[in-house]
Amino acid sequence: MIGGGQLARMTQQAAIALGIDFRVLAEGPDVAAARVVPDTTVGDYRDLETVRRFASGCDVVTFDHEHVPPDVIEALEAEGRAVRPGSGALRYAQDKQAMRLRMTELGIPSPSYRVVSERGELPTGPLVLKTARGGYDGKGVWLLDSRDDPAAAEPFRAGVPVLVEERVDYVRELAAVVARSPSGQAIAYPVVESIQRDGICREVIAPAPDLSEQGALAAQRLALRIAGELGVHGILAVELFETTDGAVLVNELAMRPHNSGHWTIDGAVTSQFENHLRAVLDLPLGSPRQRAPWTVMANVLGGDYPDMHHALLHCFARDPGLRLQLYGKQVRPGRKVGHVTVFGPELDAVRERARHAAAYLTGEIEE
Amino acid sequence: MIGGGQLARMTQQAAIALGIDFRVLAEGPDVAAARVVPDTTVGDYRDLETVRRFASGCDVVTFDHEHVPPDVIEALEAEGRAVRPGSGALRYAQDKQAMRLRMTELGIPSPSYRVVSERGELPTGPLVLKTARGGYDGKGVWLLDSRDDPAAAEPFRAGVPVLVEERVDYVRELAAVVARSPSGQAIAYPVVESIQRDGICREVIAPAPDLSEQGALAAQRLALRIAGELGVHGILAVELFETTDGAVLVNELAMRPHNSGHWTIDGAVTSQFENHLRAVLDLPLGSPRQRAPWTVMANVLGGDYPDMHHALLHCFARDPGLRLQLYGKQVRPGRKVGHVTVFGPELDAVRERARHAAAYLTGEIEE
Repeated sequence: MIGGGQLARMTQQAAIALGIDFRVLAEGPDVAAARVVPDTTVGDYRDLETVRRFASGCDVVTFDHEHVPPDVIEALEAEGRAVRPGSGALRYAQDKQAMRLRMTELGIPSPSYRVVSERGELPTGPLVLKTARGGYDGKGVWLLDSRDDPAAAEPFRAGVPVLVEERVDYVRELAAVVARSPSGQAIAYPVVESIQRDGICREVIAPAPDLSEQGALAAQRLALRIAGELGVHGILAVELFETTDGAVLVNELAMRPHNSGHWTIDGAVTSQFENHLRAVLDLPLGSPRQRAPWTVMANVLGGDYPDMHHALLHCFARDPGLRLQLYGKQVRPGRKVGHVTVFGPELDAVRERARHAAAYLTGEIEE
Repeated sequence: MIGGGQLARMTQQAAIALGIDFRVLAEGPDVAAARVVPDTTVGDYRDLETVRRFASGCDVVTFDHEHVPPDVIEALEAEGRAVRPGSGALRYAQDKQAMRLRMTELGIPSPSYRVVSERGELPTGPLVLKTARGGYDGKGVWLLDSRDDPAAAEPFRAGVPVLVEERVDYVRELAAVVARSPSGQAIAYPVVESIQRDGICREVIAPAPDLSEQGALAAQRLALRIAGELGVHGILAVELFETTDGAVLVNELAMRPHNSGHWTIDGAVTSQFENHLRAVLDLPLGSPRQRAPWTVMANVLGGDYPDMHHALLHCFARDPGLRLQLYGKQVRPGRKVGHVTVFGPELDAVRERARHAAAYLTGEIEE
């Protein structure tokens, strides 16, 4: 796996279970996955020689993020290396302009957009601006009231095309996570609601409350269709806007385990991390069935204290059913350093427990 | 953790989740845990200097097996090192003679026994012989029809006392797994039935079928009482004989995650591995509640083929709900190389699925 963040770290848990020899190309010796994967190489994923050396001896190469340059991936493929997802699929997760164009071709409902290359071309009125490449976790996205906002200059600094998107009047955000194998087998996890704050995912509810069976099925089918049309191997997460009339529009695509699927570690029969491995290795996929009526995952962001020990004592003592994943990262305010998961029969209770623990571990509650 | 077998390997999965810096003293560079724990030291756990160096900088020292010599553990403790379980408790898992004596003192029902030091002292009739120290997984135990069996010489070769135990007329074997913290908090997992073949655990059913609520509660209380009386910190597994009249006798004690608790990874809210870590670190314990009505774990023993890939394809394709843990060990006939777990609402179906997968992966079924 190229990239040594928390996704690679959690993939290691699944690799241990499956008895897979898991190797990571990490950004540094102390990143989240490097601390738990013995076969870690530290190196620059933008450098072909580094990536080539890392990949030699791997049965399959996959990713913890979408920042590996396309020419590096294509060079590996040209040498006969199995890369999953491959460059042909991955470009739609790397390049928002290519993705929007392809969704339009496929007739898949998406926000309307246009591409501009300088600030002077921006239209009047409220704006959603996205750099075509390089964004994640709210980075690379700007919500502005008008083009006169000084921040309207920022998207153009990266020197890549800027998408101007319609500001969708959505009710909430949903996500449909699916896995697909080279042999074409695919599974769909229950559709979830994802709650963002400041562009960062804070909470995921599985299944999405009050979503009709028909609506859930439509979103799953949409994600499976995208996975098939783009030839995705591994996990595909489709972030969706649900509009006032119950329709869904595609917001973003990710071709790797995704924050909206972290709940599956404790909430589904097979986690998204295990199914990502099973998919890229072309092993039969595991059941995506949800184990409890409700599961809520809440991200733990770094607070302004360095040590979580006291907060952990409180949270574990308060709630023996609380499930935790800490990513072994240095705590910095606003940084995702872990998540909690709670499951049970009653949504309100489950949600309160998850929110309390996440807020407490983040340092937002003092008792 | 001293010892780098599959118990340490599965503990690493829990350590990753809790964000704990987990360090292992392993028997060799290729043992099960060494392959998945970056901070692994290879060294001899019988050598005080090696163990002392390993333990330096650890907040707590715990174990994957019970073979560390008592004087090594006591030396660490004398230097102020937190060792959990401590030598005062651990001796009852290391020395069967001390254990039987203590159980008798505590009035806890156990098979009657006596200690002999040479073959000539053996009584007539069927015999159960155990070396007082050094046994595990059926090793160190002999079931003989009479003292004239040539194998009756074997137990005496180790030069340690030999226990001659009553041959209990039991209906089945049960196990009660509990966890206990230094602060005295304790939890009890559901009581399970454990099915052995040739002295090796092959299958565990949770909860034990047809065990009355009263019987289960009595077994849990017994295990909690033993944990408290012996001052155990961490997991205590109590192996029990259930006799024809519904009473239970203590067979063996283990003070570490135990084969009879492997089902908890997929079948309980908190696994025994996580609760072992939480207990030895004196964090509040996690819920031991069972997640599905029935969970069956079946051990996968090495068959006479070196590669499990084809068997895995079959088993995963047949049963998308199958849960697997492979230990990353070289496959050798009869060696425990992994386990499968299945959960669901109907015992017969769950058991058939687990048995099929284990038999298939072991190479006992050919299709």
